[in-house]
Amino acid sequence: MPKSVYLAGPDVFFPNAIEVGKKKNEICARYGLIGLYPLDNEIEENGLSPRKIAIEIFKANCNLMDQADAFIANLTPFRGPSADVGTAFELGYIYAQNKPLFCYSNIAGSYLNKALQLGLVDKQAEGLKDANGFEIEDFGLEDNLMLTAAAILRQAPLLTPPDGKTLLHDELSLFAACVEQAAHRLKS
Amino acid sequence: MPKSVYLAGPDVFFPNAIEVGKKKNEICARYGLIGLYPLDNEIEENGLSPRKIAIEIFKANCNLMDQADAFIANLTPFRGPSADVGTAFELGYIYAQNKPLFCYSNIAGSYLNKALQLGLVDKQAEGLKDANGFEIEDFGLEDNLMLTAAAILRQAPLLTPPDGKTLLHDELSLFAACVEQAAHRLKS
Repeated sequence: MPKSVYLAGPDVFFPNAIEVGKKKNEICARYGLIGLYPLDNEIEENGLSPRKIAIEIFKANCNLMDQADAFIANLTPFRGPSADVGTAFELGYIYAQNKPLFCYSNIAGSYLNKALQLGLVDKQAEGLKDANGFEIEDFGLEDNLMLTAAAILRQAPLLTPPDGKTLLHDELSLFAACVEQAAHRLKS
Repeated sequence: MPKSVYLAGPDVFFPNAIEVGKKKNEICARYGLIGLYPLDNEIEENGLSPRKIAIEIFKANCNLMDQADAFIANLTPFRGPSADVGTAFELGYIYAQNKPLFCYSNIAGSYLNKALQLGLVDKQAEGLKDANGFEIEDFGLEDNLMLTAAAILRQAPLLTPPDGKTLLHDELSLFAACVEQAAHRLKS
């Protein structure tokens, strides 16, 4: 039986979401894996209220995660210095299930660096704070420690562009590197 | 044995993080519960590298979540329209463990509303998109559906200010309402 991999990320919000999903599934297939792409775009609406549609999407995504043998997450920052919160939720869900997980971000650098680039760091403040006086964490990791340490502890630290240059949001080279890692791990 | 509740949220980044933790624990105690406040501020550094400290904090927080009988999350938007990603990770972790969860946000309104207020919606675009062309989800829910549907399915929809007015970041009235719900649920 081929192994399957849940494909988490904000990709479902991309203008080319369905095309990206197909490409991700093709890359998985090349490595003998079945890609499980979240079903946000494929729920039958059938006159359901938006709230009920949301609940159906949630349940469908949890079912896919429950089926999956492993997890690949796109943790590229989304509308701020951090990954998409839906993806963060899914990472926690999979981590609790003790499944192998692999993560990538098309933007390199530490959380602090991203906060600096977005102008979030209050330069007048003592220590690293934002305009609200909230601490900006600085462990040299790419995102909030709950996300990055989870990846480290599962032996697959977050992959980022090796030359430090930001990749396009739908560039899949780091994704493919995660698939390769996943295929190797699931074989052994 | 008194039941315990893990207290998730970006509160660990507040300038008054330790004081807020104490107050949260006091409110829990008033309802006969033990509050488990994340240990980000209390790890012995002992000359460890920042990366190793981050990993120790991660492990300590997971241990606390594993001990907890229930979970209360502060999902108030943090550096953008969504909750803190660390809290989102923890929500997913607890959801996968089938534990009761209770959530609040000191800012009312739908995700779309928050995106509008932050100027993230591209008014020239067709449909609801941000400046990158990424879809802005609009199910009438307060945040990404993975977070909000999780709360709904655990019979404790996100609490928000009843009059729609934004509360201070460290105002704990909605937190106290969550503690009351948790105490009631854990008794029955």
